Amino acid sequence: MQMDLNSDLGESFGAWRMGDDEAMLDIVTSANVACGFHAGDPAGILTTLKAAQARGVAVGAHVAYPDLPGFGRRNLDMDSRDLVASVIYQIGAIQGLAAAAGTTVSYVKPHGALYNTIAHDERQARDVIAAVQAVNPHLALVVLAGSPLAGWARQAGLKVIAEAFADRAYTPQGTLVSRREKGAVLHDPQQVAQRMVRLVRDGAIEAIDGSMVRIPVDSICVHGDSPGAVAMAYEVRQALVQDGVTLQPFAAA
Amino acid sequence: MQMDLNSDLGESFGAWRMGDDEAMLDIVTSANVACGFHAGDPAGILTTLKAAQARGVAVGAHVAYPDLPGFGRRNLDMDSRDLVASVIYQIGAIQGLAAAAGTTVSYVKPHGALYNTIAHDERQARDVIAAVQAVNPHLALVVLAGSPLAGWARQAGLKVIAEAFADRAYTPQGTLVSRREKGAVLHDPQQVAQRMVRLVRDGAIEAIDGSMVRIPVDSICVHGDSPGAVAMAYEVRQALVQDGVTLQPFAAA
Amino acid sequence: MQMDLNSDLGESFGAWRMGDDEAMLDIVTSANVACGFHAGDPAGILTTLKAAQARGVAVGAHVAYPDLPGFGRRNLDMDSRDLVASVIYQIGAIQGLAAAAGTTVSYVKPHGALYNTIAHDERQARDVIAAVQAVNPHLALVVLAGSPLAGWARQAGLKVIAEAFADRAYTPQGTLVSRREKGAVLHDPQQVAQRMVRLVRDGAIEAIDGSMVRIPVDSICVHGDSPGAVAMAYEVRQALVQDGVTLQPFAAA
Amino acid sequence: MQMDLNSDLGESFGAWRMGDDEAMLDIVTSANVACGFHAGDPAGILTTLKAAQARGVAVGAHVAYPDLPGFGRRNLDMDSRDLVASVIYQIGAIQGLAAAAGTTVSYVKPHGALYNTIAHDERQARDVIAAVQAVNPHLALVVLAGSPLAGWARQAGLKVIAEAFADRAYTPQGTLVSRREKGAVLHDPQQVAQRMVRLVRDGAIEAIDGSMVRIPVDSICVHGDSPGAVAMAYEVRQALVQDGVTLQPFAAA
Repeated sequence: MQMDLNSDLGESFGAWRMGDDEAMLDIVTSANVACGFHAGDPAGILTTLKAAQARGVAVGAHVAYPDLPGFGRRNLDMDSRDLVASVIYQIGAIQGLAAAAGTTVSYVKPHGALYNTIAHDERQARDVIAAVQAVNPHLALVVLAGSPLAGWARQAGLKVIAEAFADRAYTPQGTLVSRREKGAVLHDPQQVAQRMVRLVRDGAIEAIDGSMVRIPVDSICVHGDSPGAVAMAYEVRQALVQDGVTLQPFAAA
Repeated sequence: MQMDLNSDLGESFGAWRMGDDEAMLDIVTSANVACGFHAGDPAGILTTLKAAQARGVAVGAHVAYPDLPGFGRRNLDMDSRDLVASVIYQIGAIQGLAAAAGTTVSYVKPHGALYNTIAHDERQARDVIAAVQAVNPHLALVVLAGSPLAGWARQAGLKVIAEAFADRAYTPQGTLVSRREKGAVLHDPQQVAQRMVRLVRDGAIEAIDGSMVRIPVDSICVHGDSPGAVAMAYEVRQALVQDGVTLQPFAAA
Repeated sequence: MQMDLNSDLGESFGAWRMGDDEAMLDIVTSANVACGFHAGDPAGILTTLKAAQARGVAVGAHVAYPDLPGFGRRNLDMDSRDLVASVIYQIGAIQGLAAAAGTTVSYVKPHGALYNTIAHDERQARDVIAAVQAVNPHLALVVLAGSPLAGWARQAGLKVIAEAFADRAYTPQGTLVSRREKGAVLHDPQQVAQRMVRLVRDGAIEAIDGSMVRIPVDSICVHGDSPGAVAMAYEVRQALVQDGVTLQPFAAA
Repeated sequence: MQMDLNSDLGESFGAWRMGDDEAMLDIVTSANVACGFHAGDPAGILTTLKAAQARGVAVGAHVAYPDLPGFGRRNLDMDSRDLVASVIYQIGAIQGLAAAAGTTVSYVKPHGALYNTIAHDERQARDVIAAVQAVNPHLALVVLAGSPLAGWARQAGLKVIAEAFADRAYTPQGTLVSRREKGAVLHDPQQVAQRMVRLVRDGAIEAIDGSMVRIPVDSICVHGDSPGAVAMAYEVRQALVQDGVTLQPFAAA
């Protein structure tokens, strides 16, 4: 058995630090690297890309709405012309930096509000799909497991990577429990790690009502924006390794 | 005889228009396309790249300091780490958009204050050269004819394209007359056109003191930011064509 | 009888021009001046404020979502904490520039997507109202005539100025015909001018179905972003003056 | 005897934290609050202003070049028209937020590269002075003790506050030892605190060569961007209080 672990990295900006990229790059197998629209400045992005390259960690373009003050977490009503071109621009920018770092961008994972919106909004979803295909149709697209986006992207011919969130509760239907509801976010590293072991082994996760729900996934998303998050990510990695799972990028680094 | 005509394009931003890209793309053979740091938004850049592709006009990355309110015309004291990565980022971004437009970036031409600074400032010049080489060493670098930058770039192994400015007066030493001095900018389209014909035919231009000065050039820069500028550019093109000069990109489109 | 004419000004940005502020300041009595979030740079704003001051034109803060590339025309899902503070920031910034120009900000008019959203969205409407009250409760708020916002703002104790749009068609209910529908925007300057004369004289306007609808207004909004727009604004002004209407700011300049 | 302690605050931006404003506001008597050009978003600035108001800490506008990615630490060659208006804009913005926080801006302290540049560059210094006078001539200007700026500002009629840096070494001439030289920055909190006690008591400080140099100061700048910096600031405060110095804002809060 094998699995990919991905995390959002390269999110420092200028004088401001965020997360511990070095620590996370020792844990994950795929790095979703900020492209400058929600976070990340060119020099910081390049540093993260070099560190990923040195460890054989695959890199993806973590594209976002253009919204530094909102960290890409706010919905922005972009029309298709702007959204398509903005996603292409970001992918290209990080491809350029990746070339300078001696590595290659192998996938695209939308960030924040864009991620949430295109999981269900067909117009914006098709814009992002069109952008990926325009710049490089061989790039994979990382999507929320079970979302309509997965179908639209496959239909368009993209390689789709379905991901689960290690620290999130799921409904019996296999969707994420809304953050507004109690119990939506899990905090116990060992519990989280064991859930992920079971998910990889059995393709299923215990939903918030205690039932088991099947969620086929290609990658697991872990966070690294606090010391506690890094520790949880490490726990997930260790539990998977001890269970005999081979951790490797879904895409060749 | 052949010559390349280049111009700065793609400099609209959001709701704001600048220049007449369509008109200029019917005149020039190489388009220096803004990369979003001094001007240009992704959708506008993509539109310009598509229009260039449709006409067989070569495209270059018109990289700049990150300074939208100052249009990249103000010196910004960037350290090497930031400058190198910023130039790579911009080249990559426009390469991505060029791929989507069915064309390829074939050269880099720094803009505004960055252009003027690296003509003489060795540290920043070497930063830009390093950035070009890191992302794609086959990209040509467009430089001010006769500037120290030309030597540094050739020494580093870059293909160097020396350019003259159609509407500028030159000193007997072959450098530009400063804009602060009287007569630095020429306004008569026919005079400008005839100077360029002579420059292409004889490799020399009449300096401000009436002497002839040799300036070997590979490209001529014309402006398009006003109706008068477009008319002058058209006059230069027509005069060269009538003189039997073949206009074509120094780089394959 | 008296009436106020307002227009959006100060919307140039850096090297990019928009509109003809000088021409419009000879026509209108109130200038909605951009605050830097959707358009306007400090030096350009200051120039517009000085030109308004010289003509006795009242000035208002044309506050917007922070979205230069989208010109403030795209919905941005700001939370209350950010929206309140952003509106205060913009009002303060332009108050500072107004003091330097020898004038005073007398009102607030939200721009673009923010204007449209708060006309009906109570949460964001109350955020903007709270911001105005926090910085200066004596500032008036310019609102779409007949919108729910008018009631919320009056209820909160703000002075409310209801405005009509000179070049827009109205429904029999007194709301704007959507731009997506045919006939939503009027293009004949004389027709537009005569509609405004009747609106001022009778407090009513002919709706798109031919019926007359009462719309009490305190100000008329005219545009200035094209030569045709300036000509139409001039026509409105002339028709009102010839009809004996005194044009003056609703607020003392 | 009395003295003012000032520090740079409000420098978080969006999702990125910087410094511990709450801790520093319990130590200092004047808060230099970022205005959004090098750091600070409206909501964060407002929070810091409210916290300052609650403690009776005076607030100043920490104006900067427009350079978020460079944190205002890079020289930017702004012309006078832009620099004057940009400084006014920033002062106005924070005045608006201060009004909402129930406090008042009482001084201006330029930040980073702007601070260093205007200490000696007369053109830019006079631009900043003109900006302060245009928006409110009663605002004080905080300057590097002994710099030419102090004279230019006093000559123009501004109230000038000369400051020393607690953790910096001084030359025998009373200027700062360049950060490029060894020993320029002091790291021992007790040594720093005792130097400041002596500076307040005797108006003199031990220069890097062991000689005593007179430096009349009205305020002492302490940093708060790391836990160690906060501890040093606290040490300076405690040493001054134990020596009988009354800590209070140079300006009424």
